[in-house]
Amino acid sequence: MANVDKIGGNFKGKDIISLDQFSEKDIKILFSQVPKMRDIALKAMPSKILAGKIVVLLFYEPSSRTFGSFSTAIKQIGGQTVEILNPQQFSSVVKGETFEDTIRVFEAYSDAIILRHPETGSAQKAADIAKFVPIINAGDGIGEHPTQALADLYTIKEKFKRLNNLHVVFLGELAHYRTVNSLAKLLALYPGIKMSFVSPPQVGLNPNIRSYLKEKKVKIQELQDLDEVIRDADILSVSRVKKEFMPEDLYRKIQGKYRVDNNTLLKMKKESIIMHPLPRVGEILMEVDSDPRAVYLRTQIRNGTYVRMALLALVLGKT
Amino acid sequence: MANVDKIGGNFKGKDIISLDQFSEKDIKILFSQVPKMRDIALKAMPSKILAGKIVVLLFYEPSSRTFGSFSTAIKQIGGQTVEILNPQQFSSVVKGETFEDTIRVFEAYSDAIILRHPETGSAQKAADIAKFVPIINAGDGIGEHPTQALADLYTIKEKFKRLNNLHVVFLGELAHYRTVNSLAKLLALYPGIKMSFVSPPQVGLNPNIRSYLKEKKVKIQELQDLDEVIRDADILSVSRVKKEFMPEDLYRKIQGKYRVDNNTLLKMKKESIIMHPLPRVGEILMEVDSDPRAVYLRTQIRNGTYVRMALLALVLGKT
Amino acid sequence: MANVDKIGGNFKGKDIISLDQFSEKDIKILFSQVPKMRDIALKAMPSKILAGKIVVLLFYEPSSRTFGSFSTAIKQIGGQTVEILNPQQFSSVVKGETFEDTIRVFEAYSDAIILRHPETGSAQKAADIAKFVPIINAGDGIGEHPTQALADLYTIKEKFKRLNNLHVVFLGELAHYRTVNSLAKLLALYPGIKMSFVSPPQVGLNPNIRSYLKEKKVKIQELQDLDEVIRDADILSVSRVKKEFMPEDLYRKIQGKYRVDNNTLLKMKKESIIMHPLPRVGEILMEVDSDPRAVYLRTQIRNGTYVRMALLALVLGKT
Repeated sequence: MANVDKIGGNFKGKDIISLDQFSEKDIKILFSQVPKMRDIALKAMPSKILAGKIVVLLFYEPSSRTFGSFSTAIKQIGGQTVEILNPQQFSSVVKGETFEDTIRVFEAYSDAIILRHPETGSAQKAADIAKFVPIINAGDGIGEHPTQALADLYTIKEKFKRLNNLHVVFLGELAHYRTVNSLAKLLALYPGIKMSFVSPPQVGLNPNIRSYLKEKKVKIQELQDLDEVIRDADILSVSRVKKEFMPEDLYRKIQGKYRVDNNTLLKMKKESIIMHPLPRVGEILMEVDSDPRAVYLRTQIRNGTYVRMALLALVLGKT
Repeated sequence: MANVDKIGGNFKGKDIISLDQFSEKDIKILFSQVPKMRDIALKAMPSKILAGKIVVLLFYEPSSRTFGSFSTAIKQIGGQTVEILNPQQFSSVVKGETFEDTIRVFEAYSDAIILRHPETGSAQKAADIAKFVPIINAGDGIGEHPTQALADLYTIKEKFKRLNNLHVVFLGELAHYRTVNSLAKLLALYPGIKMSFVSPPQVGLNPNIRSYLKEKKVKIQELQDLDEVIRDADILSVSRVKKEFMPEDLYRKIQGKYRVDNNTLLKMKKESIIMHPLPRVGEILMEVDSDPRAVYLRTQIRNGTYVRMALLALVLGKT
Repeated sequence: MANVDKIGGNFKGKDIISLDQFSEKDIKILFSQVPKMRDIALKAMPSKILAGKIVVLLFYEPSSRTFGSFSTAIKQIGGQTVEILNPQQFSSVVKGETFEDTIRVFEAYSDAIILRHPETGSAQKAADIAKFVPIINAGDGIGEHPTQALADLYTIKEKFKRLNNLHVVFLGELAHYRTVNSLAKLLALYPGIKMSFVSPPQVGLNPNIRSYLKEKKVKIQELQDLDEVIRDADILSVSRVKKEFMPEDLYRKIQGKYRVDNNTLLKMKKESIIMHPLPRVGEILMEVDSDPRAVYLRTQIRNGTYVRMALLALVLGKT
C-alpha cells in the first residue's frame, strides 16, 4: 500500500498511519459506527463483520493495553488474530532478516497487519512495503498512535455531545507525549476550542505542535499553575511526567505539583471530565477514581476498543 | 466484585477465588454439568455457551498446563481469549503501573479475568478491585487453585461413583502443596473419609490443615512408611518432594523412599487410583503409567478441562 | 501414535513426521485439496472443516514464519489453537518435567499437536509418546520440515503444471539445509528431474543426499559456478550461506559469489522461477523481488499456508 493517503470518506483497504489522513467528515463517519460496536460488545452479540479474516498483531515492543484492545476488537467482530510478539527475538529477524521481508511475509498470511514498533516512521515504512494488505499503526515510537487519539476524541464527543467550544487543559509532561500532541492536533479541526498547557517548563509544549496550533488559529496558553485554569476546564487531560527526561531531584519536586487529587476535584466544574492515557504513576491519586468525572479507568478504555472495532469494520469488513 | 461470597447455588457472575465458597450442593451443581462438557469436547461439538464473550487470561507466572487447560476450556464452549503472559515485563507495569490499574484496565476489555499470580491472596485482591467482571483464581502462590482441586474431586467421584467412605493416602511433600491442602479440605465435606498422610517429617502435614481436619472430625493419621497403609488405600495422591525446601543430601535420601513403582502397584487394591498434580520428577516411575489405576496423565488432565468448562459455563454462560 | 507409517492414501489421524511417509499418490491427494483451500483463504469463506477442534502449537524454538503459517491455516478452516511458546522456560519443564510427560499433557487437551523442536528426531519421539492425537512435525532441527518441502513442491507444480522433466538448480549452502535435502528427496520421486548443486565446496551437497539421489537414478551435477547452468534452469532454489559454519573471511568471499541479482535474471529463462525458504540475508538482492519469476515473497509463503490447510483438513477434518 504505497502512498498513504487521505481517507476521503472511504476507509476500505486504507492504511491507517496518521491522523493527518482524517478530515472532520471521516471522523464523523467513523464515530457513527461506534454505538453499533458498543452494542456488539456489551450484549456479547456474535458478529460476522470480519468473518474469515485473519489479522496479524505484529508487536515489536510490548504494550499489553493496546495489544489487548486490538485483540478484543478483532475478535468481537468475528475476526481472528495471529499474534506475533517481539519478532526481533524470533529466529528470522535474529538471523538478519530485514524489516521489509518480515512485513512481506506477514502480509502473505493475512488480511491486515496491526503494527506496534518503537521507531518513529516505521508504520509509514511498513505501509510503503506492504502491497496487498492495509497496515494499521498501533503506535510508532514518539510518532503517532492514531486509534488512541480518535478514541479520546470520541470520549469527549460522547460526554459533551459536541466537539466545538470546549476548554481543554493539558497537564503534566507535554514535550514527549504523542497522546497530547495527537489529541491537540485532532481538536484543532473544530471551532471554538481553547487549549491550556500546564507543565513544568522543562517538558513544556512541543514547538512543532505550538506552531501547528497557532497556524490553525487555536487559542492556546502555556502556564505552570493549574489553579489559574482548572475552574474553567471542560476537559483535564493528564499525562505522566516521565522520569527519564529530567534529573531525579527535579522529578521529585515536579511530581507533587502536577498532581490531581480530591482538592482538584473540588475546583472543577460538575460537568467536566478527567482523562489520562494510562499508565499513571501517582499523577492522579486513587481517591479520584470513584468520581464520575474520572473517565480514564473505564470509559476511555472501552471507547478505545469500540473505536478500533469501528475502524476495523470500515477498513476490512464485508460491506 | 468486592466481598467474595458463597456460591449458594448461584454461580452467575461470581468471583471464584477459594474452595471456601463451595458447599456440597454447589459442587453437586457444578459436577452435574461436566458430562455435557465432556461430550462437547470429545465429539468436537461447536458450542455457543460463551459466544461473543472475551475472557482475559492474565498470567503473572508461566504455567503451561493451567494456561492450556483454561484456554482450551474457553474455546471449546465458544468463547474467545485475550492472552496476556508476564504483564510485569510489559511496559505499563514496568513503568510503575499498580496491580489495581492493571486489573481495572483488563476488566474494561473483557467479560471475565482468569488470574494466575505468584502472590498468595492476589486473586482475592483482584476480586476486590474488579467492579464489573468476575475473577477466576488460576493459582495464587501457595494460596488456592480451586479449579484444580475441584477437578481432582471430580476424578474421584467419577471413578468411585461416590465421595464418601474413602481412604485417601497422601504421599510425598505435604507442607508446601496447595494441591494437597485443597483436596483434603474439599474431601472433608463428605462423611466417612479417612486420610493418611505419608511424608518425610521435614515436610509433613501443614498445621493449619491438621487443625481444620480435626475440627471437621475427619479421621487422619500421619506416618512415614507407605507400606503401613498402601493395601487399604482407595486413592493414592502423590506429590513431588520439592528440592528447594530441604538440604541436597536429605532430598536424595527422601526421593527414593517416597516413590511409586511397579512394586507399589502390586500392593494396591484393584479398584484404587493413583493421582498426581504433575509435573512429576521421578516420584512415580514411568513403568506405572500404563496401569489402569494411573489416572494422572490423561483422566485427571481431561477432567481439569471439563470442570473448567462447566464452571465457566455456570459463571459466564448464557442461560 | 506409535510406529509412524506410510500415508498409503489415508491421512486421517496419521502423524506427519517425515517425507518418507508420502508416495507420489499421497502427494497427488494432498495437492488436489489445495485449490479449495486457496479459495477459502482468498475469499475469506468461513469454514467448518476443523469446527470444534483444538490444535496445540507447541514451539520449543521461535519460528515466527512457521508459527504464523500454521496458526493461520488452522483458523482459516475453523479450528482453534492453543499456543505454547518456549515451554522449556515454563515452570513444569523448568521443574524437571520430561518431554514424555509434556507431550502426554498436551495431547490430553487437544485434537492434534504441531511440534517445533530444535532436536532432530524429536517429532518421531513425540509421535511414539502420543497415544491419542496426531503429531505434525513443524521442523525438528536439521531433521525434517515436511510441510515446507511439500509447499515448495506445490509451488513448482502450480507454476509448471508438471513435476517431471525439470532442471532444478540449488544455489548456496547445501550441507546444513533441511530445505534443500527435503525438496531434493521429494523431486526424486518424479521422472526426468535433473539437479545441479552450486555451492562453495566447504558447504556442498550432503553425502547422504548424494547417495540417495544416485540410488534413485537422478541426474545430478555438483559445481561452483552458477553461470555454467543458469541459462538452462527451470527452478533456481537459493539458500542462505550460514555464517556459523565457516571462517569469517571465507564467508565474506563466498557471500558475494553465490548471489542472485538483476544480472542473474538476464541469464534466466523467461518461464523459470526463483525460490528461497527465507529468511534471506543478502543472497537475493531486493532488486530481484519485483520480477515475476521471484516467487519467494508471496507465492511460496501463501502456498505454505494452503498446503498446511489441506494437510490439516485431511488429517483432522470432518469427512
